[in-house]
Amino acid sequence: MTERPHIQLDDELENLTAQITEMGGLVELQLANALNAMSKRDSKMAQDVIAMDHDVNLQQQEIDIAAATALALRQPVSRDLREIIATIKMSGDLERIGDLAKNVAKRVLVLNQEEPVTLTHGLGRMGRQVLSQIKDVLDAYTAHSVSGAMEVWTSDDEIDELYNSLLREFLTYMMEDPRTIGLCTHLLFIAKNLERAGDHATNIAEMIYYIEKGEPMAEDRPKGTPNKLTDVKPKAD
Amino acid sequence: MTERPHIQLDDELENLTAQITEMGGLVELQLANALNAMSKRDSKMAQDVIAMDHDVNLQQQEIDIAAATALALRQPVSRDLREIIATIKMSGDLERIGDLAKNVAKRVLVLNQEEPVTLTHGLGRMGRQVLSQIKDVLDAYTAHSVSGAMEVWTSDDEIDELYNSLLREFLTYMMEDPRTIGLCTHLLFIAKNLERAGDHATNIAEMIYYIEKGEPMAEDRPKGTPNKLTDVKPKAD
Repeated sequence: MTERPHIQLDDELENLTAQITEMGGLVELQLANALNAMSKRDSKMAQDVIAMDHDVNLQQQEIDIAAATALALRQPVSRDLREIIATIKMSGDLERIGDLAKNVAKRVLVLNQEEPVTLTHGLGRMGRQVLSQIKDVLDAYTAHSVSGAMEVWTSDDEIDELYNSLLREFLTYMMEDPRTIGLCTHLLFIAKNLERAGDHATNIAEMIYYIEKGEPMAEDRPKGTPNKLTDVKPKAD
Repeated sequence: MTERPHIQLDDELENLTAQITEMGGLVELQLANALNAMSKRDSKMAQDVIAMDHDVNLQQQEIDIAAATALALRQPVSRDLREIIATIKMSGDLERIGDLAKNVAKRVLVLNQEEPVTLTHGLGRMGRQVLSQIKDVLDAYTAHSVSGAMEVWTSDDEIDELYNSLLREFLTYMMEDPRTIGLCTHLLFIAKNLERAGDHATNIAEMIYYIEKGEPMAEDRPKGTPNKLTDVKPKAD
């Protein structure tokens, strides 16, 4: 083996970490603003969230190019290599969270054309929970904390529960007053978007585990459980 | 620069391609069976689809490990490097398609406990379209065909249109007969799962472009357009 240019690689790894942290911060802000736009019925803010998506996508491209360059020029091995591979995967997860925040914002724009909705309290709560998952997983990433990552990973169950209870709530509203069906469908998809954003935080937690432990986490991660919807049956006549 | 062990790398790239193709075939089968289980109301088949997810996840792990090993030992550059990076991303997209197929199968199990449903024709049509997108993008991958990939990429709009028209249909049913709300919500999420599976085929198309062209595709890819749901308003009383 030839000698590796370790110092430059360290610099590049540091830059990649900084880029992921920056992208993470941007995506966190995007989702926070989407939730604010929802609770405050603020269409201007929702539009800003949608516009932010462009920057998030560019950041992903920059990260992927930087990661590919580091792979090509520095030929990293072991932990360094895992870190770069994880970077590529995490930029994908962050991009998807940004996408989901954008989708929430798009639905907020539609909701704002309707009557004021009081159904969004539960969504707000779920959103805050997801947001704190994203914050925690990014903290675990910068702190190289496997235990922090595991905590995010196991907490995903709580989000799934919140999601299922929201789903039941919206379905009940729809059944009680069919005029709310269009509206509740938006709320239902917002809830689904938030649940998916939580899943991506879980993916990032798995990547942290992989970086630090050198092997993939066992596959049975907590996930969305659509079959829980079995609990909700159309009311008998 | 030291001389690269080209021959071994070529072997490994070939193996990676074979693994992606195999995983793609498995995921294709998984989604095809999920759709069959839906149209034939076959709960046993749906259960098999759910069980297949374990193999798909293992395949993803194997591919990622093989890709990481190739990166570490062979230090590829240029096209070879892009191919391996793309492999890691594509295994992620395929894993998600498998996940979505599993979710469809889980909902089929629930639907099968209900009265026979005739609403699934449109879903079947959409499913076949998504399936052919996945097949086409895998063909484009093995054929190194940028034009094939672009075709999949642009066809995603059709799937989005199918999705939006199904959404309108289900919402109309729900409004006309609130007893169908629970049921239609399942169908609605199946449609959403299929639409997302189509998005992942689009992602793979972008990766093919990246491998062959050496740069990421311009960002404005066709995507789900949730705001189209604005067309559907609760009926006035």
